Amino acid sequence: MNKYLNRMTGFMGTAESIEECQAVLIGLPMDFTVSHRPGSRSAPQAIRNISFALEEYSVYQDKSLLDMKFYDAGDVSLPFGNIKECLKRIEEVAQDVFASGKLPLFMGGEHLVTYPLVRACRHYHPDLVILHFDAHADLRTEYEGEKESHATVMNKIAGLLGKDRIYQFGIRSGTEEEFIFARQYTRLYVDEIFPALDRVIEEVRDKPVYITLDIDVVDPAYAPGTGTPEPGGCTSREILSAIRAMKNLHVVGMDMVEISPLNDKSDITAILGAKLVREALLAYVK
Amino acid sequence: MNKYLNRMTGFMGTAESIEECQAVLIGLPMDFTVSHRPGSRSAPQAIRNISFALEEYSVYQDKSLLDMKFYDAGDVSLPFGNIKECLKRIEEVAQDVFASGKLPLFMGGEHLVTYPLVRACRHYHPDLVILHFDAHADLRTEYEGEKESHATVMNKIAGLLGKDRIYQFGIRSGTEEEFIFARQYTRLYVDEIFPALDRVIEEVRDKPVYITLDIDVVDPAYAPGTGTPEPGGCTSREILSAIRAMKNLHVVGMDMVEISPLNDKSDITAILGAKLVREALLAYVK
Amino acid sequence: MNKYLNRMTGFMGTAESIEECQAVLIGLPMDFTVSHRPGSRSAPQAIRNISFALEEYSVYQDKSLLDMKFYDAGDVSLPFGNIKECLKRIEEVAQDVFASGKLPLFMGGEHLVTYPLVRACRHYHPDLVILHFDAHADLRTEYEGEKESHATVMNKIAGLLGKDRIYQFGIRSGTEEEFIFARQYTRLYVDEIFPALDRVIEEVRDKPVYITLDIDVVDPAYAPGTGTPEPGGCTSREILSAIRAMKNLHVVGMDMVEISPLNDKSDITAILGAKLVREALLAYVK
Amino acid sequence: MNKYLNRMTGFMGTAESIEECQAVLIGLPMDFTVSHRPGSRSAPQAIRNISFALEEYSVYQDKSLLDMKFYDAGDVSLPFGNIKECLKRIEEVAQDVFASGKLPLFMGGEHLVTYPLVRACRHYHPDLVILHFDAHADLRTEYEGEKESHATVMNKIAGLLGKDRIYQFGIRSGTEEEFIFARQYTRLYVDEIFPALDRVIEEVRDKPVYITLDIDVVDPAYAPGTGTPEPGGCTSREILSAIRAMKNLHVVGMDMVEISPLNDKSDITAILGAKLVREALLAYVK
Amino acid sequence: MNKYLNRMTGFMGTAESIEECQAVLIGLPMDFTVSHRPGSRSAPQAIRNISFALEEYSVYQDKSLLDMKFYDAGDVSLPFGNIKECLKRIEEVAQDVFASGKLPLFMGGEHLVTYPLVRACRHYHPDLVILHFDAHADLRTEYEGEKESHATVMNKIAGLLGKDRIYQFGIRSGTEEEFIFARQYTRLYVDEIFPALDRVIEEVRDKPVYITLDIDVVDPAYAPGTGTPEPGGCTSREILSAIRAMKNLHVVGMDMVEISPLNDKSDITAILGAKLVREALLAYVK
Amino acid sequence: MNKYLNRMTGFMGTAESIEECQAVLIGLPMDFTVSHRPGSRSAPQAIRNISFALEEYSVYQDKSLLDMKFYDAGDVSLPFGNIKECLKRIEEVAQDVFASGKLPLFMGGEHLVTYPLVRACRHYHPDLVILHFDAHADLRTEYEGEKESHATVMNKIAGLLGKDRIYQFGIRSGTEEEFIFARQYTRLYVDEIFPALDRVIEEVRDKPVYITLDIDVVDPAYAPGTGTPEPGGCTSREILSAIRAMKNLHVVGMDMVEISPLNDKSDITAILGAKLVREALLAYVK
Repeated sequence: MNKYLNRMTGFMGTAESIEECQAVLIGLPMDFTVSHRPGSRSAPQAIRNISFALEEYSVYQDKSLLDMKFYDAGDVSLPFGNIKECLKRIEEVAQDVFASGKLPLFMGGEHLVTYPLVRACRHYHPDLVILHFDAHADLRTEYEGEKESHATVMNKIAGLLGKDRIYQFGIRSGTEEEFIFARQYTRLYVDEIFPALDRVIEEVRDKPVYITLDIDVVDPAYAPGTGTPEPGGCTSREILSAIRAMKNLHVVGMDMVEISPLNDKSDITAILGAKLVREALLAYVK
Repeated sequence: MNKYLNRMTGFMGTAESIEECQAVLIGLPMDFTVSHRPGSRSAPQAIRNISFALEEYSVYQDKSLLDMKFYDAGDVSLPFGNIKECLKRIEEVAQDVFASGKLPLFMGGEHLVTYPLVRACRHYHPDLVILHFDAHADLRTEYEGEKESHATVMNKIAGLLGKDRIYQFGIRSGTEEEFIFARQYTRLYVDEIFPALDRVIEEVRDKPVYITLDIDVVDPAYAPGTGTPEPGGCTSREILSAIRAMKNLHVVGMDMVEISPLNDKSDITAILGAKLVREALLAYVK
Repeated sequence: MNKYLNRMTGFMGTAESIEECQAVLIGLPMDFTVSHRPGSRSAPQAIRNISFALEEYSVYQDKSLLDMKFYDAGDVSLPFGNIKECLKRIEEVAQDVFASGKLPLFMGGEHLVTYPLVRACRHYHPDLVILHFDAHADLRTEYEGEKESHATVMNKIAGLLGKDRIYQFGIRSGTEEEFIFARQYTRLYVDEIFPALDRVIEEVRDKPVYITLDIDVVDPAYAPGTGTPEPGGCTSREILSAIRAMKNLHVVGMDMVEISPLNDKSDITAILGAKLVREALLAYVK
Repeated sequence: MNKYLNRMTGFMGTAESIEECQAVLIGLPMDFTVSHRPGSRSAPQAIRNISFALEEYSVYQDKSLLDMKFYDAGDVSLPFGNIKECLKRIEEVAQDVFASGKLPLFMGGEHLVTYPLVRACRHYHPDLVILHFDAHADLRTEYEGEKESHATVMNKIAGLLGKDRIYQFGIRSGTEEEFIFARQYTRLYVDEIFPALDRVIEEVRDKPVYITLDIDVVDPAYAPGTGTPEPGGCTSREILSAIRAMKNLHVVGMDMVEISPLNDKSDITAILGAKLVREALLAYVK
Repeated sequence: MNKYLNRMTGFMGTAESIEECQAVLIGLPMDFTVSHRPGSRSAPQAIRNISFALEEYSVYQDKSLLDMKFYDAGDVSLPFGNIKECLKRIEEVAQDVFASGKLPLFMGGEHLVTYPLVRACRHYHPDLVILHFDAHADLRTEYEGEKESHATVMNKIAGLLGKDRIYQFGIRSGTEEEFIFARQYTRLYVDEIFPALDRVIEEVRDKPVYITLDIDVVDPAYAPGTGTPEPGGCTSREILSAIRAMKNLHVVGMDMVEISPLNDKSDITAILGAKLVREALLAYVK
Repeated sequence: MNKYLNRMTGFMGTAESIEECQAVLIGLPMDFTVSHRPGSRSAPQAIRNISFALEEYSVYQDKSLLDMKFYDAGDVSLPFGNIKECLKRIEEVAQDVFASGKLPLFMGGEHLVTYPLVRACRHYHPDLVILHFDAHADLRTEYEGEKESHATVMNKIAGLLGKDRIYQFGIRSGTEEEFIFARQYTRLYVDEIFPALDRVIEEVRDKPVYITLDIDVVDPAYAPGTGTPEPGGCTSREILSAIRAMKNLHVVGMDMVEISPLNDKSDITAILGAKLVREALLAYVK
């Protein structure tokens, strides 16, 4: 595949080569713009390592990774501290996957990676909608003087896609300006995933859907390993249900970001991440 | 000096001076009588440091710390190991704040600090009632031979205020004697916050209310950083709701105690503490 | 010697000698066949040490350990790495307790210990049924080439007892083959404890019941200290309720396994374990 | 009961009863006056638990704990936060041991415990000298307004014993006043253990010697688990050598203080403590 | 307010305002270009917090911070992820301090900060020499495609200053190319601080000296909290000696970088950092 | 290669295939017989992951891994808890490597693995001598009733090879019986590496040498991540020197065992392990 990709060790059940695969798993180890606690750069590898503590089979969905074909393509090589070049490389890698027609599942890294991913996705799916799970609205126009930031990413995507293309779930933190912006440009559900998600699923049934999941949508009790933990979130069970609830949608891409293994000495965040990857692969690969 | 230089100090959003402030935040770094795991002395500073990972604005209440004036007055100097002098100083400091008419919010430290705080409060609000959130009844008459202890604090306060002035929520631990005492002297709700709290709010609507919140009322999954974690507690969401539910009461003072950052390597207890401080300031400062 | 000196030993409230005791607490510090993260060998001692942070009295059941007689008999000496000898010794110790008519409560250690325990129990209670709380089905026929493993233990017990003698609650992980096996040989409830448990309690009311509780049935948020954490489990409150729900059954033995203190820097898993031990003693000793 | 069952208790190799023992090991779990990081209260039990990872035999001294008789008498019950009562009880317990003629070895707990220990010792050995190993001079007259403190303990002992009775090794921290005081009242060696210790051993050869060892004399690299780590100290090898170097002295008592297991996630401080206890027992019990 | 209240802020002993101060302490919380383990951004605040566990007085130098005047000016505000702007601001702040004639002591952050610091310093001291303490040569021409990196910083400075202006001590890691470069452009001492440092001190006695100290020059046993720990380094005692050995030089500025508190659960690296700051202030402020 | 080998990700600088390689690196993730703290099973992968924080070039030896060819063959698949089968597989894998004439470097896992390794080695080098670096003599005849144990491994090897074929350095722990055995069967240096090693190197200059290095020979300050830490050991610098000192010997195989990453939150033990692997490859591959 793309020259920037290098394979280390894979997620459990990965195929040996990318041919005939329906889905591709890609790590994006970038965490430079994070404000509070860095460390998400090591998430993709931590998730792969711990995936072997799980089963390939999901009793929730009665399906197994062994009955499908996906390829763990490794991590994108990213130059430390050079945001512009990082975003360029990520977009290029994403372009290649979307062009291939395979379903991409990206593991961050920080949330800013979603911007080049959506740029690439939009090229192939111009009418896409975004389902965004997060504790934070991420709708700032700048953050500490920077426009390229994990805290501005959904604002930048709103600028790219236009009004009412982003659905935000579980949001419980942001500035006043962000919530004013949200009222005009996005569909934002404070604190809530269900039942809002069920209604939105009905609405977007015919559209290409891109899912972006910031792990901090889950309460820090269940996901302590993250950069900006925000108390008051949902449980592991709820986010696992949310993944399955979207299984009949036309999901064209997904990312899961902001897992920071360094801040979780019991590794329960990484294992939740690995389980979400398994469930997403089983739900969205048709 | 140079405009880029700043000395971080105090809880996020604190005013530079106490004048014109409506509320005062005060740290009480005392933890000598704790039986199981000490460490709450470092809570006030840990909560201040981590507060910057949150926003000043609360989407739950649609209000911001930037629209009000509160002052973080720092910590009370306390001589290590001298209980009597510590309690004397705490009471003196509390007297000053209550006298000023500003709303005090105290961050412990251990639960014994509530005794001098209530003594000072009672002077200005003789008919006050206490809303007490805790896993433990804290109604012992002595603990390991000591009468001045985090485990006897509510018993001492009951002695001070008389019958039926203390409402206890979320209690799930204590000796048999404590529960016998509770039946006569306090209103105690085993394991439960809601709906009991809603009923009590109706009852105490016309009285001055002092809130004392021991973080271990929350389950150790959500608040592992505490001295005597007690499984089976409420979620972060429930305690955040409880804070907001009391917003129309006449709250005259509050403390939050027993956060012990040392025992929580992911800092999720301190950040829950910071969020509770923000929500309380926004809810109770009129 | 001096009256102030005491040598702390055993679970809180243990009798000084086994005579006249109705129940016996025994540690089984074995963890060799664990695949992912070892460490459960230190659980029995960790649970004893931390038990002193709890009360002997349970407000849930309005009973106290001080009003009954149980004996903490310490740990079984187990030769490191010799599975066969370990299982033999465990069975021998268990035989002795079942023969005495006292109620045994075993603290693992890994789940494989349940096999010799049930073998011993069956000798005295041939028509026993097993109530099994776990995230994993543990119904494999072999694991990494080994038949004696924590992952095969319930399969081996099913072989011993025959069809429909095992009730499995909270299961959310396993291979496809395990679930096919379960359909024929056990009663398995995916992800669920209640209300399934209430129905099963009715069914087994007249039978001798052996309870085996793998701590990973609880969500890793509440029990991070375990070998193979599996997100999506129940809360501490639910498992505490489950213990009490079975109090009118004819419980003839119980084990609690797979607590691994090494993986939980806040000790909340060990303290949950200690609380479960207290509640079980209070509920099942008649 | 069954021969495989045993209840682990006490330091490795302890006798079952105190009779005929030549030495007694006693824990003093007090840490209320500590300024920086509390936690030494759990040291005695942590040292006992980890002692089983060592051998009873010392190749350095070619002697074994199995060839002598010592008794681990457990911990002194201490009321949390009541300094006066704590010091009283400690002195009473120490009186009993000194009266019995057995060699006492105390495990703290914080350094303030040395004051009542020396008071009791002086009663039986009026001309005793103190060999003090520490990073800090502990010669303050008060600390944060308190006279009873871990930081004043050697000053108080100097007051008790008079001039030139205390030899201080490894000292590298203190106020200017403390060093001025030291010049008049004690023999203080900055930063140095050897060769100063060799000279002092010659000097005190005919006197009863009490050893007080604050673990922070060792560099934090070797002993991170302590309340006030002070970089620049000696190695484990040096302190082990120092213990052996004093073996021909007339040692009448010893304490080892300020180990704080909470601050050392690898337990290397506790195991160093256990090794020092073993070496001291082997060296000083005649 | 009340006399017992104080707001802790700044390094211990800091003056309240910058006027009349001889030295300035400045934090540079930047860590974006770090390759292995980020986290040094939190070092300045961690060092300040832990400084209160030390004394203002140094027995090594028989001097106290209380007898001099220095000002802790706080941290420079740095936009996350924007290297260019960060370096610009750091240089501007440094210019201001050098212009004032006060001695600056900078606390990183990552090692790249030294580049703008030396640029500013050179403006006022054109003939300065650099004494560089580090495990790594930091002489690469690029790192992972980037020229602005912690791994290229001394190469960039060599380019700025020319040949033989940099003295490197304790170096034990680098690429072959770096050591070839070093032979031509710098004076590099493999693995060694003393006695090389004593000779160099003689050589540079008449020149303005800038000291840059990467904490990883010290062995990871003494300084585990750093981004790229390199076994085989010096002890705490040696680096403390090195600081004092340079006290008669004309030191015009100093930085201490790459402390990463996140990776050191016992805080011994931060406290070593605080002690080095104290010793440097006492040694270099005339 | 051997059917039990599976490749995950490699040590830095590994060749892509084993052909033309002079050395082979193999992981042995076995830790069942460990008595105190398990966890060495994860060492090989941890050492590989962290190796990328080092350079391929060693300035000590002025050589680079990039100028030689070695192959990281991954870990041997080992059935959990089945000692006999584990030892059989390890011996078979080792046979294959010794047969190929390539230099093997094994990464444990626990020390018992050395027994099958030496058995395989002896087949090709009947007159081999063992240089053994360890804190413990490992000369027991049985341990907790088991003959196959990490504590008996050197006794078993002495039985295999006969008298005076094992040289033991740095030993500071064992039973009295072990040291009596050592006097007859091995050459044991208490506590000491240098200068004993220099003398032994002269003696064994003409013989095939097998090196077995238990990481606990190094002091716990430098290597806290190990199963049975023993205070009083050597520094990182000394063990690195020891590796280089043996570079002119005819080294035919080496293992490095008992690194336990779980017990070292700062990862300094794993990085020391990786540096020892690099230095050994550079020193012993001719």
